[in-house]
Amino acid sequence: MSDLQRFDRVRAVRYDGEHLQLLDQRRLPATQTWLRCTGAADTAQAITDLVVRGAPAIGIAAAYGAALAARARLAESTDPAQFSSGWAADLALLQAARPTAVNLAWALQRVAAVCAGLDPQQTAACSLAEAEAIAAEDVAANYRMAELGAAFLAPGCGVLTHCNTGSLATGGLGTALGVVRAGVAACRVSAVYAAETRPWLQGSRLTLWELLEDGIDARLIADGAGAWLFASGRAQWLIVGADRVCANGDAANKIGTLAHAVAARHFGARVMVVAPWSTVDLATAEGAQIEIEERAGEELLAVAGQRIAAPGGQAWNPVFDVTPAGLIDVLVTERGALEKPDVAGIARLAAQAD
Amino acid sequence: MSDLQRFDRVRAVRYDGEHLQLLDQRRLPATQTWLRCTGAADTAQAITDLVVRGAPAIGIAAAYGAALAARARLAESTDPAQFSSGWAADLALLQAARPTAVNLAWALQRVAAVCAGLDPQQTAACSLAEAEAIAAEDVAANYRMAELGAAFLAPGCGVLTHCNTGSLATGGLGTALGVVRAGVAACRVSAVYAAETRPWLQGSRLTLWELLEDGIDARLIADGAGAWLFASGRAQWLIVGADRVCANGDAANKIGTLAHAVAARHFGARVMVVAPWSTVDLATAEGAQIEIEERAGEELLAVAGQRIAAPGGQAWNPVFDVTPAGLIDVLVTERGALEKPDVAGIARLAAQAD
Repeated sequence: MSDLQRFDRVRAVRYDGEHLQLLDQRRLPATQTWLRCTGAADTAQAITDLVVRGAPAIGIAAAYGAALAARARLAESTDPAQFSSGWAADLALLQAARPTAVNLAWALQRVAAVCAGLDPQQTAACSLAEAEAIAAEDVAANYRMAELGAAFLAPGCGVLTHCNTGSLATGGLGTALGVVRAGVAACRVSAVYAAETRPWLQGSRLTLWELLEDGIDARLIADGAGAWLFASGRAQWLIVGADRVCANGDAANKIGTLAHAVAARHFGARVMVVAPWSTVDLATAEGAQIEIEERAGEELLAVAGQRIAAPGGQAWNPVFDVTPAGLIDVLVTERGALEKPDVAGIARLAAQAD
Repeated sequence: MSDLQRFDRVRAVRYDGEHLQLLDQRRLPATQTWLRCTGAADTAQAITDLVVRGAPAIGIAAAYGAALAARARLAESTDPAQFSSGWAADLALLQAARPTAVNLAWALQRVAAVCAGLDPQQTAACSLAEAEAIAAEDVAANYRMAELGAAFLAPGCGVLTHCNTGSLATGGLGTALGVVRAGVAACRVSAVYAAETRPWLQGSRLTLWELLEDGIDARLIADGAGAWLFASGRAQWLIVGADRVCANGDAANKIGTLAHAVAARHFGARVMVVAPWSTVDLATAEGAQIEIEERAGEELLAVAGQRIAAPGGQAWNPVFDVTPAGLIDVLVTERGALEKPDVAGIARLAAQAD
């Protein structure tokens, strides 16, 4: 893994032994500033304000926020009842920071569960230990997915990725971007393309910055250029993350993913979805059951804060789409990689002991 | 056609009886300002500066520029030799304004041909008459294409269009947007979606503005949202223009067209390409022979004049792509509409008497 570690330089969520340090993603790539969080309130605010984004990264930040909150409550009072009610309020505050992020709830539940029945001192210690475990597990899961995914790549291939799925979205290498990094480290990926990802431009603002930080040569493309990229033989793989993977393998991801996937299939390129097991939602049978968030048209009618469209113009702005399992050639989770993912394959992974 | 005329309110190129008036497209939609051109130099500059854009509109502007130049030369001198050398220089200046625009050369050649052998007075009169004929023929061709294309649309359909192919790009209703207008006028199109068209945002800046001017309800979408639009059943047609149509029906158009076309085919929607016959290039056998212009990465790395990507970031910025004939369900020209366009069908249209 030493080759891969060369391409693992970016960290956006750090515990410095005393406080949580968050790389302020709102200000990237123009400036790299770190925001220090000392408790529940400022951590929750940072999550709400998108200082930190990406489901795994949000989960890790929230877990550290819970641990910082426990330490602060302990400093106020060692009375178990008083501590307990105060800390419960802190967890609720963190939970409400971005209610739709699955990993946020999952991480807070893990911290709360491990501290159940403990006294205030033990809670302060164990919540921090659990936050560090969540962070460490994410780093390890990223490495495992990177290795599993890169094994599918033939030397000399070109890769297209979409949105940001790297160190800015996770605790480690990233999911899809971790596979890209591993592919570059193994000298299998010879060209990396990042779609700019309208309306929020994560590809332009974040992915291109991360890859530059790692010294990986990459090219930004317009979202509409994915099909032409595959048609012209410049890329043989689409490698993307997922916000939710259904029990049948259908995968919701940032708007634009489906268009790339359809084009990849049409022109003979392959599609890899890389997501931690916590993203797999066995309770959702198929993509048609996923409600797709539609956001304000203003995000499209303006660009980078500047109004472009005519006054009175309207937009349709779904921010996710669903790629059916039939278009996914490989699904990679830290539990294993599935070619042609389906209900049976996902059930096999689900049956693995944790 | 009275219903359709209700949706034909925008004109970007006008001859006011004395001068050429161009709606300054660089300043749309924020302000509607008209630039008055009085001769070859200012008309050429306006074409170079993208005050006017779109191949048919450029051709019309250049033809009027040639006529204005003839009148100006006549005012200077009625000596045939002096007039002739001056006017030839004017035509060369106009020709060089945007050398890659096919319609620019075509329109200037028409004007020059009709004036061959005429004296200065006759040239001034005939060049203006030819410019007016070119403009009038474009208006008529737009109406004919709109009628032919709209006949394919079933009532209640949704339509996606890309880039700007309307009154801002032609002398009349537009090509693809003319079909959309006719479909709305005939109560067949119930929903119009316009892709924003990165990197230049013609969809956002121009198409949405045109449709609003006509009172047509439209929604802007991200370029990456086309596939999800078709997958979710919101649109049954992709209707686009073309910059060049090959002898076999392959069509080059603004980057992003191919992605929409592949998605339309995948999800059972249909693809219509609408282009005047002057766009059909019988000398180019197939799309593989078209050289695709790649422009500076800066157009992607910045958005609306604001740098987004990290310093040092690079981009791949092809501004056109080629949709193979096999993905085109209907090709509409003013000579007729072809279902499943191919070499034989295009040869049949070519054989029609002008």
